[in-house]
Amino acid sequence: MDATDQARAAAAVDEARQWDRLMRMAALGAIPGDGVNRACLTDLDRHARRLLIGWAQDLGLSVSVDRLANLFLRHEGTEPGLAPVLAGSHMDSQPNGGRFDGIWGVLAALEAVQALRQAGVATRRPIEVVAWTNEEGGRFAPGCMGSMAYAGYAPPETWDASTDTEGLTFGAELAKHLALEADIPRRPLGVVEGEAPFAYVEPHIEQGPRLEAEDLEIGVVTGIQGSRWFTVEVNGKSDHAGTAPLRLRKDAVQDAVRAITALNALMHDPEDVLRFTVARIEVSPNSSNSVAERVRFSIDFRHPDRTVLAERGDAIERVVQGAMTTCTAVVTERFNAAPITFDRMVRDSIEKAARAEGLGTLRLPSGAFHDAQFLSRICPSGMIFVPSRNGVSHHPSEYTGPAHLAAGARVLAAVLADLANR
Amino acid sequence: MDATDQARAAAAVDEARQWDRLMRMAALGAIPGDGVNRACLTDLDRHARRLLIGWAQDLGLSVSVDRLANLFLRHEGTEPGLAPVLAGSHMDSQPNGGRFDGIWGVLAALEAVQALRQAGVATRRPIEVVAWTNEEGGRFAPGCMGSMAYAGYAPPETWDASTDTEGLTFGAELAKHLALEADIPRRPLGVVEGEAPFAYVEPHIEQGPRLEAEDLEIGVVTGIQGSRWFTVEVNGKSDHAGTAPLRLRKDAVQDAVRAITALNALMHDPEDVLRFTVARIEVSPNSSNSVAERVRFSIDFRHPDRTVLAERGDAIERVVQGAMTTCTAVVTERFNAAPITFDRMVRDSIEKAARAEGLGTLRLPSGAFHDAQFLSRICPSGMIFVPSRNGVSHHPSEYTGPAHLAAGARVLAAVLADLANR
Repeated sequence: MDATDQARAAAAVDEARQWDRLMRMAALGAIPGDGVNRACLTDLDRHARRLLIGWAQDLGLSVSVDRLANLFLRHEGTEPGLAPVLAGSHMDSQPNGGRFDGIWGVLAALEAVQALRQAGVATRRPIEVVAWTNEEGGRFAPGCMGSMAYAGYAPPETWDASTDTEGLTFGAELAKHLALEADIPRRPLGVVEGEAPFAYVEPHIEQGPRLEAEDLEIGVVTGIQGSRWFTVEVNGKSDHAGTAPLRLRKDAVQDAVRAITALNALMHDPEDVLRFTVARIEVSPNSSNSVAERVRFSIDFRHPDRTVLAERGDAIERVVQGAMTTCTAVVTERFNAAPITFDRMVRDSIEKAARAEGLGTLRLPSGAFHDAQFLSRICPSGMIFVPSRNGVSHHPSEYTGPAHLAAGARVLAAVLADLANR
Repeated sequence: MDATDQARAAAAVDEARQWDRLMRMAALGAIPGDGVNRACLTDLDRHARRLLIGWAQDLGLSVSVDRLANLFLRHEGTEPGLAPVLAGSHMDSQPNGGRFDGIWGVLAALEAVQALRQAGVATRRPIEVVAWTNEEGGRFAPGCMGSMAYAGYAPPETWDASTDTEGLTFGAELAKHLALEADIPRRPLGVVEGEAPFAYVEPHIEQGPRLEAEDLEIGVVTGIQGSRWFTVEVNGKSDHAGTAPLRLRKDAVQDAVRAITALNALMHDPEDVLRFTVARIEVSPNSSNSVAERVRFSIDFRHPDRTVLAERGDAIERVVQGAMTTCTAVVTERFNAAPITFDRMVRDSIEKAARAEGLGTLRLPSGAFHDAQFLSRICPSGMIFVPSRNGVSHHPSEYTGPAHLAAGARVLAAVLADLANR
């Protein structure tokens, strides 16, 4: 590791250039209140990817996609046969999302690679900027499909039947997307069809309040809490809202309300570490004067402790069934990601680079899951956090200023100059 | 009143013909389980109306529509200047509805008029078979728009901005529909642009269990309980489901669940006379890992007692507001129909006609609201109920057999022979 090279790479990061690119991306799918709605595998997503590819080609990076449509922009190393260092994040957003979640990590990686090249800092290993497909899971559940497939966590066809709210399947939309990107060279899919990377670094906004509260610039992420997602389907019987006596009904809304109330008790946590969310509800027939025949609702449950995640997660089925009075319920687990701890090599590299830049650092876990959660299974991985104003994300008011984002990109440039020379 | 004419008209009712027409209508919008989904002002609705119009024209009835697309099939009286007797119901269905609710009332009226004509029973007054627009309110809320406008209960443009789940407005869809029926003569809109009818009779399935339980053929409907419909909008703040601490959230799903639970307590009725239903829920952004920013839910509240309807209905706002912990709520009343009592002349005519036919009768109130609720404001009105198997309606399994339906049409034919000669 050459501290001078690291400093030179960091110094070449251009705050205005990075911010300008971010704002141009934010225009694709812009929604009121400075937000972004850019679902994966849509025309908007493809516009954003083409914009990124154009910038990469201007820099002389080589572009490729794999069968999950994960997108790679490769900076060649002096020893091309070595396993590459990957850096990036995702480009899709939540339906009512912000301008920074995901996309900044991809643009920070591009900025860091550009800085390395402009500073004339060569690396032994190749560096690949990566944009993973469907991290958010907002259109097709679950999230992190691209990185899960890349890491061999699940077979690549696992989610083909996942549907969006219009009934389109992930498999069909992916095939359509790949046909529209047929001009881009195809590459093997991660460790399933190819080799593991040497390391993976993901820059991301914190999505929590801690860095801002402590007035620090860089979060050195120690790990990611575990997540378990469920769908609960409550099945009752439709009936006439004006005639059917309440004692004879099988009202799916009423039993769903009872189930959510019982789950609140199960998930009660005086320390407020546990995250329990019911955020998606679909009622059928959803007509105000027909008693509900079916209610489907989602459960998003997260905790950093493996034991809590197992015990309370496994209790969901029993609690839901216990809440049913006249209806029946089916509980399906859709996603289960264990808590992980990031590799020490990457954490140390981030911490040292930040300190060398004179930036204040905080070691902290991630409350959100990220693609790094799956990459960490196949290579040393880590994340760089920058502050989120008011801790808000997944909302149009999500915000991180240009100076904080530039600081994050400088740290990444130095980390890449370090890791890609190991 | 000529009892012989009444008996001859009733005897000319053709059970198989009526059933055959009903089954042909049921094919338009057929859904699994013998159900029907035929929303108002759709192509399916128009197909059904054209099918009805064809049958009416074969009989020599004259066809007209008013500006709400209420459809009239006129049998001329010997004294055409007299106010007509109206008989009918509606042709739209619930989204997951059955084959009998509404449409049978229209076809029974057609069958009764055909029987009168075949039996050579002349009437002094004209008789008009009517199909009211949007009784169900399943696509555009509230229901009974056609009869409310006809009766001058609300101005005809009141619901122009009401939207369906795809964002189409009632006003625009009505205009489109009228353009597609421009070949049909236009008539004045009820008492708003014309004269009041002499009387109104609506045949309908009971939608409750009483006639079946007492093994009786004909319900002589005494009145209709009152209905109040509300929409509750709970406004919170979206946030990241993995990072936002629960104590800092404004989770609209959680406060909506609290509101529904509190409303259950307000609406508790040990006698099970009160009808309280939450059957429509819309969550925004409705993404499983974004805390809900907004929840809208419907309230359908009914009771035969005017005082209960006023007191508990007026308490809804307070109870909802009291349930809010972190969110705010807006409660909007969308529909308010007072309980009504049907006119004695029509009730007596129905009861006598049924007994003359040797049918068992039961006097009972209606739990559902009907177009007759609004017609009763402008002319003597009444309803003829026939048994509903298991009391089920607003569901594909809704069923009434051909013999019961023929009995209902026979009573109607006799009632029309009576009322249209007064």
